[in-house]
Amino acid sequence: MCLYRTIILLLLFIPSLFFLAAGGRDSRAEAAVLEYDWVVGYLAAAPDCVQKMVIAINGQFPAPTIHAVEGDTLVVKLKNNLPTEGVSIHWHGIHQRGTPFYDGSAFISQCPINPGETFTYKFVVDRAGTYFYHGHLAMQRVAGLFGLLIVSLPSGKTEPFSYDGGDLSVLLSDWYHKSIYQQELGLSSIPFQFVGEPQSLLIQGRGKYNCSLDLPPGGSAASSSPDCLQCNATNPACAPFVLPVQPGKTYRLRIGSMATLSSLNFKIENHNLTVVAADGRYVEPFVVDNLDVYSGQSYSVLLTANQDPTQNYWVGVNVRGRKPATPTGLAILQYLPNSERLLPPTPAPMGPVWNDFAVSVAQAQKYSAKKGLESAPPTTSHKLLIFLMTQSIINGYTRWAVNNISQVPSATPLLAAFKFKLWSAFDQTPPPRRPPQYTNNKHFDIFATPNPNTTHASLGNGVYVSKLGEVVDIVIQNTNTLVPNNSEIHPWHFHGHDFWVLGYGEGVFDPRNSTKTYNLLNPPLRNTVAVFPYGWVAIRFIADNPGVWPFHCHVEPHLFVGMGTVFAEGIHKLPHIPSQTLGCGLTKPTRW
Amino acid sequence: MCLYRTIILLLLFIPSLFFLAAGGRDSRAEAAVLEYDWVVGYLAAAPDCVQKMVIAINGQFPAPTIHAVEGDTLVVKLKNNLPTEGVSIHWHGIHQRGTPFYDGSAFISQCPINPGETFTYKFVVDRAGTYFYHGHLAMQRVAGLFGLLIVSLPSGKTEPFSYDGGDLSVLLSDWYHKSIYQQELGLSSIPFQFVGEPQSLLIQGRGKYNCSLDLPPGGSAASSSPDCLQCNATNPACAPFVLPVQPGKTYRLRIGSMATLSSLNFKIENHNLTVVAADGRYVEPFVVDNLDVYSGQSYSVLLTANQDPTQNYWVGVNVRGRKPATPTGLAILQYLPNSERLLPPTPAPMGPVWNDFAVSVAQAQKYSAKKGLESAPPTTSHKLLIFLMTQSIINGYTRWAVNNISQVPSATPLLAAFKFKLWSAFDQTPPPRRPPQYTNNKHFDIFATPNPNTTHASLGNGVYVSKLGEVVDIVIQNTNTLVPNNSEIHPWHFHGHDFWVLGYGEGVFDPRNSTKTYNLLNPPLRNTVAVFPYGWVAIRFIADNPGVWPFHCHVEPHLFVGMGTVFAEGIHKLPHIPSQTLGCGLTKPTRW
Repeated sequence: MCLYRTIILLLLFIPSLFFLAAGGRDSRAEAAVLEYDWVVGYLAAAPDCVQKMVIAINGQFPAPTIHAVEGDTLVVKLKNNLPTEGVSIHWHGIHQRGTPFYDGSAFISQCPINPGETFTYKFVVDRAGTYFYHGHLAMQRVAGLFGLLIVSLPSGKTEPFSYDGGDLSVLLSDWYHKSIYQQELGLSSIPFQFVGEPQSLLIQGRGKYNCSLDLPPGGSAASSSPDCLQCNATNPACAPFVLPVQPGKTYRLRIGSMATLSSLNFKIENHNLTVVAADGRYVEPFVVDNLDVYSGQSYSVLLTANQDPTQNYWVGVNVRGRKPATPTGLAILQYLPNSERLLPPTPAPMGPVWNDFAVSVAQAQKYSAKKGLESAPPTTSHKLLIFLMTQSIINGYTRWAVNNISQVPSATPLLAAFKFKLWSAFDQTPPPRRPPQYTNNKHFDIFATPNPNTTHASLGNGVYVSKLGEVVDIVIQNTNTLVPNNSEIHPWHFHGHDFWVLGYGEGVFDPRNSTKTYNLLNPPLRNTVAVFPYGWVAIRFIADNPGVWPFHCHVEPHLFVGMGTVFAEGIHKLPHIPSQTLGCGLTKPTRW
Repeated sequence: MCLYRTIILLLLFIPSLFFLAAGGRDSRAEAAVLEYDWVVGYLAAAPDCVQKMVIAINGQFPAPTIHAVEGDTLVVKLKNNLPTEGVSIHWHGIHQRGTPFYDGSAFISQCPINPGETFTYKFVVDRAGTYFYHGHLAMQRVAGLFGLLIVSLPSGKTEPFSYDGGDLSVLLSDWYHKSIYQQELGLSSIPFQFVGEPQSLLIQGRGKYNCSLDLPPGGSAASSSPDCLQCNATNPACAPFVLPVQPGKTYRLRIGSMATLSSLNFKIENHNLTVVAADGRYVEPFVVDNLDVYSGQSYSVLLTANQDPTQNYWVGVNVRGRKPATPTGLAILQYLPNSERLLPPTPAPMGPVWNDFAVSVAQAQKYSAKKGLESAPPTTSHKLLIFLMTQSIINGYTRWAVNNISQVPSATPLLAAFKFKLWSAFDQTPPPRRPPQYTNNKHFDIFATPNPNTTHASLGNGVYVSKLGEVVDIVIQNTNTLVPNNSEIHPWHFHGHDFWVLGYGEGVFDPRNSTKTYNLLNPPLRNTVAVFPYGWVAIRFIADNPGVWPFHCHVEPHLFVGMGTVFAEGIHKLPHIPSQTLGCGLTKPTRW
């Protein structure tokens, strides 16, 4: 048995490529089956030079980057080695056509994987692009359970842009020193205890708590603060992430954010970035010198190493939309053959002023679909949903609600509930298509601080059901929070779909006039879109993917207190559901 | 829905007595059904005046004490409100005859209860006595998930001892500031990181971290240490637990320990204690001035308030068997009408010297069954198992093993595996009945430090299977740990059974001669017995309870790294297993 176990252990750390066609890994012409053996477990790590327990895959934080080719089948055998916690992994941006049960959202597409169980995800990555995977049970993503999923084009297909330097990628995140259990407790306490601002910003899982604050303009990252003793630049464990480039070359840089709370701004000093793709879809190229990246979003940008090659340059990440209380996250753009330890002689780069929302809205409006490569939306929709997001007090608890429903999980996966007609698993009253506030009070003021005693919100888990093929518009309407003069950025992510972003607006959406501003010609396709303070965003999608799909704010503490919805479509065409996804709630076995 | 939820919320906190015969709650002649609605969730608490997150029931730590009457049926509806963790509750000391699926050990009697699920335990408390309930999934008990279960005699039956003052109870525990997740990570790391000594000792969930150290002989518990600012005696949140007594009266005091690691010694200064019951079984009374209480054990003692009534007295708890690094846990015996804030004028009481094991062995040997009230054991047994406990290194991990098998959980509840013949759920090779070490090396030296490279131990989850009615003897043999000159106390607890403690011995158990020292006349019946350093203990039980029952060390970090075994008996007479206990591992539904 010992020998057997040793072999198993060895296998766990070797992702095996079962079928490889001729050509390099990222330029195959035929699809392959990529098999991974993963173990989810705790890990003692110090991503920002402060010791903390993270949830890791195969002992790695961030979790290992997957490299696949469009059309490949991924087979991920996931062993849950957490002693008491269930787990599930969402494949963020993957459409899961025909495999909605492997979308990985706990209690929606599957039961949590129990401690000690092994669960096999198997699905096709049907479109090249930059995606993610991450824990999707309560706040496990915030514990570090996330990684990049990079899907390349097969040989024979070419990108609509060119670069001669190669591929680079950076996964951005914010980082908290408090455990997720304490964060979850605080969010579900009376009085409400918010998670607060993150302690650090990480680039590819590396940051420096409280160190960059002390960074002298022309000096090193070493500091005299006792907290920073270990995070001087000569400590390899705390060295910043390095992006090496050859002078004169152009690179494709993939950038994605798995932030808990923060909207991030990404900048490389002295360098422009040409945006060419977003969320795995091509966009008409445009040039920026700093890039807004909201949680759940990914970008591809072209970067040319065209600056003075005798020095290195800072890569900097800053918080947008919330008063910054977190130092700039730093990495190094290394001009080869300079040493990676050659620190740039300049101060840490700053983005736009945190509350200059006009800048962010303007950048968001620059996106349009790449002509000839992305489809245009249907010119009309079958229905319009208006989602009014409000912060409410429900039974003393501070919650977020959409049209007065604050989402709570069902104990039964909703996909199985639809498939097996387990109607008692969730609220059978459909959630409101329009804000009840508009009916009760036509003059609902999105700029006013709501009176928590009159919000009338309640907990619920009803589902928006669409007919197969239906074209649905959703307008997400922002409001003032319970804090006077405060409205926040919310990046909404849709599982199982890309949607067209038809337009953004300030103030209250007006169904008669606001629609006139829509871009129906070449709106960008995305899976995650930001709603800006006191504004709205309009999206359109086609309900053509039989399944049950969450659509929710990607800010983890917001989702945890209810800022989410669930859509079901094609429920008469749901596929057979594998047994391994069942066993909880109403899907326990009944016939032994 | 809001009103409905409010009613549910109100109900959650009212344990409802569905059937009450004539007479007081603790003196009913007829059995009742007691129904409880419980919610398991996180709670911010400061049991020793240091803030920590605990796992609580209905917001209480320790969890609420259950008061029942012999023959009652308990119905506990348990809602798991933990965001990511499963949970299960073991009813420690309850035999679960006919209901082995409600014993509450995760992956043995049931699947963990998933987040959001409600699980209903329903079983008869068939014998008066002092019992416990506690979490039995990984180390959740250590997070504070435990409470007392007190079962009284029905009216018409009388105790074989008398007291005129009433009933008192104290639940003892040790307390760690590190989270269980961090403890679990350390125990499963290379190199091994032990949990270390506890920070505090709690009496009925109350202690004072680092305060009692500074206690002046004639003064108050206030201290000048910054850590102790909040834990002076005038802070009600940090006030010690109080046992109020009327001078001259005699009380029945129930004492139980849910300690993580520590063997405890309980003492009330100036007062003798007359021991009358242990683990719910009557013993011949004997008098002590300090009482050893091992984790998982309970005692009833008679206490007479016969001292100077003008003062109060310290109740003190100290660590035995490990070099103390934890201050004495303190409560107050309050002589009414003195104020409960009248602190005793004396230093904290001390127990015996920590490593005077002879004192502990001598006290353990004082126990004998109460004549006429407890049965004698069968005079012979059908088989003898010898369990050699060794500390081992397996694949680099520090583990405990029994006969070279270090227990790992199955992903499938073993009870269901036996019932449904899911033989791939666990190792089909039965674990060794005798130590392989004795075969390989007849001169195995229990006093020597084992060479971790030659222990040949391996991970496993095989089961000891007994025929129904079989009489089984088990000898648990202690050894030296991997630390030179170190052997530790291990309290072994059996689920589903009381067993006779036939005898204790020093050194190596000798099947030919050691048995001659057995007490077969009136050995005490117990469910938890301590094995002393470099010694052995012999027990006898009758395999007459169809089910699958863990028998393991009750020291949580020892169990976590493998110091446990599982017994199955009457496997052809296993009852129908409720669906709610299934759904994990191989018990997922297959026919939808």
